[in-house]
Amino acid sequence: MFSHQTQIRVRYAETDQMAYVYYGNYAMYYEVARVEAFRFLGFPYKDLEASGIMMPVLELHTRYVQPAKYDDLLTIKTSIQQMPSVKIVFQYEIYNEADTLLNTGETTLVFVDMKTQRPRRCPPEILALFKPYF
Amino acid sequence: MFSHQTQIRVRYAETDQMAYVYYGNYAMYYEVARVEAFRFLGFPYKDLEASGIMMPVLELHTRYVQPAKYDDLLTIKTSIQQMPSVKIVFQYEIYNEADTLLNTGETTLVFVDMKTQRPRRCPPEILALFKPYF
Amino acid sequence: MFSHQTQIRVRYAETDQMAYVYYGNYAMYYEVARVEAFRFLGFPYKDLEASGIMMPVLELHTRYVQPAKYDDLLTIKTSIQQMPSVKIVFQYEIYNEADTLLNTGETTLVFVDMKTQRPRRCPPEILALFKPYF
Amino acid sequence: MFSHQTQIRVRYAETDQMAYVYYGNYAMYYEVARVEAFRFLGFPYKDLEASGIMMPVLELHTRYVQPAKYDDLLTIKTSIQQMPSVKIVFQYEIYNEADTLLNTGETTLVFVDMKTQRPRRCPPEILALFKPYF
Repeated sequence: MFSHQTQIRVRYAETDQMAYVYYGNYAMYYEVARVEAFRFLGFPYKDLEASGIMMPVLELHTRYVQPAKYDDLLTIKTSIQQMPSVKIVFQYEIYNEADTLLNTGETTLVFVDMKTQRPRRCPPEILALFKPYF
Repeated sequence: MFSHQTQIRVRYAETDQMAYVYYGNYAMYYEVARVEAFRFLGFPYKDLEASGIMMPVLELHTRYVQPAKYDDLLTIKTSIQQMPSVKIVFQYEIYNEADTLLNTGETTLVFVDMKTQRPRRCPPEILALFKPYF
Repeated sequence: MFSHQTQIRVRYAETDQMAYVYYGNYAMYYEVARVEAFRFLGFPYKDLEASGIMMPVLELHTRYVQPAKYDDLLTIKTSIQQMPSVKIVFQYEIYNEADTLLNTGETTLVFVDMKTQRPRRCPPEILALFKPYF
Repeated sequence: MFSHQTQIRVRYAETDQMAYVYYGNYAMYYEVARVEAFRFLGFPYKDLEASGIMMPVLELHTRYVQPAKYDDLLTIKTSIQQMPSVKIVFQYEIYNEADTLLNTGETTLVFVDMKTQRPRRCPPEILALFKPYF
């Protein structure tokens, strides 16, 4: 299993008039978490797109346990339980500074060749970076 | 079953550098769809909050079938399959102008008393409006 | 002078915990206003990009008079005071349903050739559409 | 003069199909910059709101010099040239990692008593923190 942690400070822009983080913004937090996981692994997502491969999201699932609030310093624990193939599944848990679980989520992404716009296998360079974790 | 349709034009702000609608923005489209469904029903969500009841989201599920693109005029078909109780479940299907299914989603919301911050039953005035559909 | 009006309903996602529309979201309202102005004129912005010309923003100025609020139905009055050349200047006034002025703004955009990434003159087809207004 | 620097990593969500940061998102970057400036000064904005004072924005001005791009690590240099009174003016310069100036901006905010909803002077505790810089 691969796992990684990253932190995000809640912005005013991300709150809504309930004084909660707007429910649609967690998907963006997940994005930051998986981008930082890839950077940590040694293959920034930006370089992946530069090499002609993109990773659109196929599926998103979110469970809202407790609301995140303005200026909270959130810790996002990201994990990947299975070696990526054509797809890659990320799981997320978001905690506040009091270590309360606020949110859990899961996203399924697919590797896509940007020229053909068709799904393809995870590139071998990335598989090699994941191997030690599985 | 209650069902309702609403239309949304994709904004430039909502695209990302893949030239797709950013995956996190569909949650906002669902929000517009259910707000318009409540307005159609005769009980604007704004009035619900003014009466001291809010509806935070407990759970979100999205399946990305085809990407929505800039300036697409989307049709969102919203349905509620079961009479609301403490919770209310909305289902969404998003189509483009060529009537291609782009996205499906589901959100579970809960009625919350804003003073006590505790869940409560769907107010009787809203149940009365839903009754003819079930 | 060219002028045009469009309407926008404030989304929950666009509010912040002050229960105002977040100050950064007015730029998006301006975008919708100018896109609808171009559509009304007969040259959708989408077609402009398809023809290889884009219009990035050079300058933005906003004055916040009164806060827009959740579910407000806003009217945006857009005007162009001068024939576009390499640049085009849009002015905006945003009113709520009580016809109270909430916000004024101005954006300067530039026509850019997407291949060369260099500024260029406003295409003659668009100038022709503007001519009757000046 | 008070000045402070903070860094922001551009998110995928913040790009648009031009592959630039959407022009409306810089206002959010300015928000982060001034919030971090207040935190550095010793008075987090969150505590200000908790004490019953908020700071809505009166005016925003932005000049887009070069586009910020996905995954750029931006440095925002924030400065305050004059002791705050009822108003406070922040100036911003945004640089990328190559130290290229991408964007300059200015926002004017006002101190507002949340109970009366009326403007008020900058609280003396904050003035005391600013004093050494002027």
